[in-house]
Amino acid sequence: MIIQPVVNIAEICARKGVEQVVLSPGSRCAPLTIAFARHPKLTVRTVSDERAAAFIALGMAQTTGKPTVLVCTSGTAALNYAPAVAEAFFQQVPLLVLTADRPPEWIDQLDGQTIRQQNIYGQHIKQSYTFPVDFSHPDAVWHSERMVSEALNTAVAFPAGPVHINVPLREPFYPAPDEEVTFSERLKVIDEEHNAFELNHQQVQRLQQELQQHQRVLIVAGQDIYDQQLLQSLETFARKRGTVVVGDIISNVQQNPEVIRYQDAIFSCPDEEKLKVLQPDLLITFGKSIISKSLKLYLRKYKPKAHWHLQPAGDVADTFQTLTRIIRCKPVHFFTSLAGAEEKGAKAFAGVWQNMNEKAGKFIQQHVTEAAYGELAVVARVLQHLPQQSHLHLANSMSVRYANILALQPTQHVQVYANRGTSGIDGSTSTAVGCALVSSGITTLLTGDLAFFYDRNGLWHNYLPQNLRIVLLNNHAGGIFRLIDGPKQQPELEPYFETHQALNAENTARDFNLNYTPVHTLEELENALPAFFSAEAAGILEIFTDSPANAEAFTRYRQDVRKVIY
Amino acid sequence: MIIQPVVNIAEICARKGVEQVVLSPGSRCAPLTIAFARHPKLTVRTVSDERAAAFIALGMAQTTGKPTVLVCTSGTAALNYAPAVAEAFFQQVPLLVLTADRPPEWIDQLDGQTIRQQNIYGQHIKQSYTFPVDFSHPDAVWHSERMVSEALNTAVAFPAGPVHINVPLREPFYPAPDEEVTFSERLKVIDEEHNAFELNHQQVQRLQQELQQHQRVLIVAGQDIYDQQLLQSLETFARKRGTVVVGDIISNVQQNPEVIRYQDAIFSCPDEEKLKVLQPDLLITFGKSIISKSLKLYLRKYKPKAHWHLQPAGDVADTFQTLTRIIRCKPVHFFTSLAGAEEKGAKAFAGVWQNMNEKAGKFIQQHVTEAAYGELAVVARVLQHLPQQSHLHLANSMSVRYANILALQPTQHVQVYANRGTSGIDGSTSTAVGCALVSSGITTLLTGDLAFFYDRNGLWHNYLPQNLRIVLLNNHAGGIFRLIDGPKQQPELEPYFETHQALNAENTARDFNLNYTPVHTLEELENALPAFFSAEAAGILEIFTDSPANAEAFTRYRQDVRKVIY
Repeated sequence: MIIQPVVNIAEICARKGVEQVVLSPGSRCAPLTIAFARHPKLTVRTVSDERAAAFIALGMAQTTGKPTVLVCTSGTAALNYAPAVAEAFFQQVPLLVLTADRPPEWIDQLDGQTIRQQNIYGQHIKQSYTFPVDFSHPDAVWHSERMVSEALNTAVAFPAGPVHINVPLREPFYPAPDEEVTFSERLKVIDEEHNAFELNHQQVQRLQQELQQHQRVLIVAGQDIYDQQLLQSLETFARKRGTVVVGDIISNVQQNPEVIRYQDAIFSCPDEEKLKVLQPDLLITFGKSIISKSLKLYLRKYKPKAHWHLQPAGDVADTFQTLTRIIRCKPVHFFTSLAGAEEKGAKAFAGVWQNMNEKAGKFIQQHVTEAAYGELAVVARVLQHLPQQSHLHLANSMSVRYANILALQPTQHVQVYANRGTSGIDGSTSTAVGCALVSSGITTLLTGDLAFFYDRNGLWHNYLPQNLRIVLLNNHAGGIFRLIDGPKQQPELEPYFETHQALNAENTARDFNLNYTPVHTLEELENALPAFFSAEAAGILEIFTDSPANAEAFTRYRQDVRKVIY
Repeated sequence: MIIQPVVNIAEICARKGVEQVVLSPGSRCAPLTIAFARHPKLTVRTVSDERAAAFIALGMAQTTGKPTVLVCTSGTAALNYAPAVAEAFFQQVPLLVLTADRPPEWIDQLDGQTIRQQNIYGQHIKQSYTFPVDFSHPDAVWHSERMVSEALNTAVAFPAGPVHINVPLREPFYPAPDEEVTFSERLKVIDEEHNAFELNHQQVQRLQQELQQHQRVLIVAGQDIYDQQLLQSLETFARKRGTVVVGDIISNVQQNPEVIRYQDAIFSCPDEEKLKVLQPDLLITFGKSIISKSLKLYLRKYKPKAHWHLQPAGDVADTFQTLTRIIRCKPVHFFTSLAGAEEKGAKAFAGVWQNMNEKAGKFIQQHVTEAAYGELAVVARVLQHLPQQSHLHLANSMSVRYANILALQPTQHVQVYANRGTSGIDGSTSTAVGCALVSSGITTLLTGDLAFFYDRNGLWHNYLPQNLRIVLLNNHAGGIFRLIDGPKQQPELEPYFETHQALNAENTARDFNLNYTPVHTLEELENALPAFFSAEAAGILEIFTDSPANAEAFTRYRQDVRKVIY
């Protein structure tokens, strides 16, 4: 039987700008599967492991900025979406999650694939809806159409995020042989004109005056997607006023050549007194999370007098324990409106920062050139070889940290993604696959062995994108535990923290028909990189290193950087 | 710093009978990891993929009947437990889930691996607790000790299930070099003497009288673990009274030779009128879910006059839409207390059932002997070769159905497990691994390719049990969609329902050092089975079949069984 309001979900999604749909196979979700699969304007793919499916959808939405639709059957399928839904929630990525369900009367009756799906994503979803199950009253049809619009409007409203519609379905749910699936032409769609989140003239003037009272202003950019307009406004603001801008690799502001990018090295100084010269009067932040722990710890200790955070709407985190004012506007608007006269003392303050940054950059450059084969030296070379204008996905946990220490050069024009909403290792591969599927040019995934094998199912489907490049740092363990204080002093280090794992990716490459290049030396790496990136096909570059040796090399880096910078 | 109340969690668990702990690596959970790893009486293993870790823990608890402890770090780790937690909830398997968390003041502050963990399992947990974070007041210590006892008491109280303690931890959480971890000797443990759930004399008499009024009594056993006492009481009851007992393969009552086991074949008759002779007056049920859909549909249509369900406590499902009375006692007590005089008309009623069962059994036996190479014929041979007294884990979706159609013979003494709480394909391999880890003798996993590759990470750890045997039915797709009406008529069958997948297990076997035997014919299978089961090492027997051919063979079986039985 055709349930027209269910068919119309696909049509409303298409009209409201959805392009990508990721299904997972199931019988209960058949009416949704058929509606989406038959819709002429939607690209539909099917991925069997729902955990991977959801991260692939996340990668697509992250890259396009448009909501991706997920469809799964009833039961634990919906729970396997949960890690990606939480990541989407904290990373503010729009997803529309459609979970098929049994009708209410059959819940808890011991039928297969039946769990309690209402509000199943708890506090990690912007909104949860329950689709009507009976359409005999016309209000139910209105309800169903309204709900899809509301859900999509909510998903993209700032801060964007995942929304969930649970869709209970009674049998029969397959079209009869004589039934044809058609999408209704007349149906309700509610558009939403979002607020521009601009400040009015008085607000701009008042903030301008306050800004003048601060001599040492520091801008710190949190995680955000690449945004050309924002980048330009920030660059103009900073240049005109002489303001210092700090941006981690995931902030996507490192394309601005003036941006301070070696904060992780700068703040690894053991003598924090020496760093007092970097303390701001006013801190201005925007975007989401910060990777550099040493920067966080510094600002928590050397607090600015005032801290303004720019965020149009939603809860605001007090990352540095310094927040004094939330400014409800778009960062691009703030920087455009308030670009103006140079700050008093800006030159001196900026000079100290730039000087530090330059010293740190030179040191790192030299250090990785001279360093023996090891993860930091290896990642440096991978970053150098990234194709221009390409996408880079950084897996948790050490991959993103190494890359952040090393930073990108402004001329590279690489867009950076990382699942720093929840910082899990559970979906990096899938997320990178999602990114590659919806973008042209190369998508590089930089990942460790634990993250890679954890999410191997991100490759288990029939759509492996040929523009995907996986750089796998295989030290056969969770090497991070050797690098942080605490676990490395414990007798449990090897079995319970580092957790030795024996796999390499050769068989995985064979399973999924990926090019495979193992690397054991810097020379092999230098030789392999150009071909790896210029090949016509997807591939894995597996770089084998030794976890204790990496730890030693990293300790040496940390010691040297302290000596050299100060 | 050592947080003594956190250390004591391990001690209280050990005192209350916990034996098995499954950790996943992380830093935030270090105080828990160290406490459990250092406890002399606990067996601790570490598994990196939390989804697999939780299903392994489930498999252990399913097999031992004792709660398994799970420990993970903060963030999405906890969400990756969710599918197994839901399965444990509906399958009533005791688990104690310990999730490390940041302290409350650091939630939503954009720090890594920080989500909203309180009540994270929603409606799929028996109870959620929050561990104290500050122990400066002695009541907090009392609270912490009490909580661990309460959680474990709740986990095992009927109906058993998962419980969750969220453990917020402030840094520093590693012991200092001069600190030694010791388990307190004097700490609070609350035991619970559970009710025997027996009926009193008056109740027994009244039920006995009512029972006499029914001529056609049918007992249907739902899913339950193997229980020798229950089996004997049921056998005695049924023999004395002449009562018919029906049990699916997952009910673990097929060791009783009188038990009707071919219900799936019996009720596949297209002319249901002919089945009216099987309609009971009184239906008595116990246990959890039923696999045989045709039995469910029959009883929903040919309703008994009365339906008693035996269950000590908890919500009761009305699986057949026939429930009239819930009897709050243990099934073993009911069958022991009410075994007595023969029912009027029992012989005739039982005769019809036994006759049908015998005919169906003979037909199936002959059918699979003569049938060409295909899944049903293959599974029949695998079941025949199962070692005596071994464990069998049946994956969803077709594996468990095939096995249920074919049934086990009473002399085999095989204990059967299947994740029929939620009927997901997401954790079968891990669950079987958990079973094998805590049992001697062979554990056989019968699984399909989608279920197997979905949960490949169940093999990704350093404890692969050598008593594990994986029988993998690889038809390179979700073959079930070709076997059920509906999807097979849709143009979307292949891409979106069946979902072709290209993998075979050869590389996986290589990855995990498993014996590997591919099979393409019945002859190869017959030759391979004895060595497969008698080998000293874990192995995969990969049986390749063709999905359309399986569908044809299954259709032929369905047609023939109808003709022959009636």
